[in-house]
Amino acid sequence: MAILIVGSLAFDDIETPFGSSMNTLGGSSTYIALSASYFSDAIQMVGVVGSDFEESHFKLLHNRNIDTKGVQVVEEGKTFRWAGRYHYDMNTRDTLDTQLNVFADFDPRVPQRYQDTGIVVLGNIDPELQMKVLDQIQKPEMVILDTMNFWIEGKPEALKKTLSRVDVFILNDSEARLLSGDPNLVKSARIIREMGPKTLIIKKGEHGALLFTDNGIFAAPAFPLESIFDPTGAGDTFAGGFIGHLSRCETVNDTELRKAVLYGSAMASFCVEKFGTEKIADLTMLDIEDRYDSFLELSRIEC
Amino acid sequence: MAILIVGSLAFDDIETPFGSSMNTLGGSSTYIALSASYFSDAIQMVGVVGSDFEESHFKLLHNRNIDTKGVQVVEEGKTFRWAGRYHYDMNTRDTLDTQLNVFADFDPRVPQRYQDTGIVVLGNIDPELQMKVLDQIQKPEMVILDTMNFWIEGKPEALKKTLSRVDVFILNDSEARLLSGDPNLVKSARIIREMGPKTLIIKKGEHGALLFTDNGIFAAPAFPLESIFDPTGAGDTFAGGFIGHLSRCETVNDTELRKAVLYGSAMASFCVEKFGTEKIADLTMLDIEDRYDSFLELSRIEC
Repeated sequence: MAILIVGSLAFDDIETPFGSSMNTLGGSSTYIALSASYFSDAIQMVGVVGSDFEESHFKLLHNRNIDTKGVQVVEEGKTFRWAGRYHYDMNTRDTLDTQLNVFADFDPRVPQRYQDTGIVVLGNIDPELQMKVLDQIQKPEMVILDTMNFWIEGKPEALKKTLSRVDVFILNDSEARLLSGDPNLVKSARIIREMGPKTLIIKKGEHGALLFTDNGIFAAPAFPLESIFDPTGAGDTFAGGFIGHLSRCETVNDTELRKAVLYGSAMASFCVEKFGTEKIADLTMLDIEDRYDSFLELSRIEC
Repeated sequence: MAILIVGSLAFDDIETPFGSSMNTLGGSSTYIALSASYFSDAIQMVGVVGSDFEESHFKLLHNRNIDTKGVQVVEEGKTFRWAGRYHYDMNTRDTLDTQLNVFADFDPRVPQRYQDTGIVVLGNIDPELQMKVLDQIQKPEMVILDTMNFWIEGKPEALKKTLSRVDVFILNDSEARLLSGDPNLVKSARIIREMGPKTLIIKKGEHGALLFTDNGIFAAPAFPLESIFDPTGAGDTFAGGFIGHLSRCETVNDTELRKAVLYGSAMASFCVEKFGTEKIADLTMLDIEDRYDSFLELSRIEC
């Protein structure tokens, strides 16, 4: 089933205790699309870049069979930029700079041939833009939304309106507490699921992820890595693997949702091993299945 | 197999956002013993109390078939006391008061009939006292040690000396980082296992626990509870359930160690539901097996 992804394409300046990487290709939809591309060859991106987005950047996406016809190029414009610095323990980071650039006036237009797409992924951007995209799709089978603190605090009403049309909502633990107003994650999940999304995933970084559905709770561990090199994009990469697996399922039930969480976790565990998209642009399905098996082994009690 | 437990018996004053409980029976060995008592009827305690430790307190332990002949009663002495206050999110607490009292001059003596015990649990007390106990046991089959920041910072050499004689070491994530000097838990685990204990458990509170053995890593989730009432003693209760399960195993292999971690997690999840030992003093094996099954379900992908 085709997957339409809207979100940011960006250039990031990243500093970690292990080094720094400047002008690195990034953005929520870049990570989501690259990650999902191992599971589906019908990935469609909707977004906007400036004229500084070079042919080599498009080529990296096209090499993974990602369709970028929905990515508008603004001549004389500059691509969205983000700069951040990670702390010693890699669990926290400071945003040093954000330049919206071409995103400031972005008016998403979904190409006609994308409008009957089955799966719509609303990556982390302004919820009003997410809604504009959704309005252009005819009967999507599944709508997935990711967001962050910035929009929960800045546009809570627009976010809640969009959420009412969402099937799967992905956010992290601090965002869940912020949105629900409750420090307990089980209570938070109940409050958030009442806003619309029947399926909720709360990411907990190095502590894994929790999946909430009508049938109960699934707790996925994170992969215990010896070294985490750069956490940028790990959450989006998780979303890409999660959606990628679901796109190849005949039926989406609890078992497939649980597997999808593990595939997402496996993809995220690769992402943090190198700077930016370096690792997830260059994997094989064998790498991914091996890592998936390691995740299964990690929480297996007996065969 | 008999389980000998050394550690503190205490009276705690506990404040949580939900209320407070004064003069509550507590202490590391109390929680460990009560928790393990559901799995074994040969629990032996070694410790010390004052004359303020009443018959009703002993009765609570005896009701669970716990042998307290190794608990010295110091006439005119006062039992160890601890007072603490939990923060809003229940993940952090402040120690308001600690009174060593009879523990200040405690000289542990292991009764003759305990000296051929199979499993020795060195609960959280001064590592020099832990060593004194170990010296009095003939060829224990398994030695388990729990400790905390206070001893890692205060008596690192004594702790390392004791650790070299330990089979299973249980501590929490911040303690592991402190002891190893490395923020990464996988690296920490390697460093700590080189100090002696082949089996290492790193508890992560509401994020579950990691088990490290020669055969790999096991990640156990924590039970996602709607309300956590009082976290006091949860770590010790985990240790009790863990050891309790191992004590009934013919052979201790990786599968049984993994199951033991889940039994420990199940016991800890009960502990936090009420103040102090209230909940874990009053369970049935059916309650425990039900909770254990819920833990299995929490990380099950398919049957």
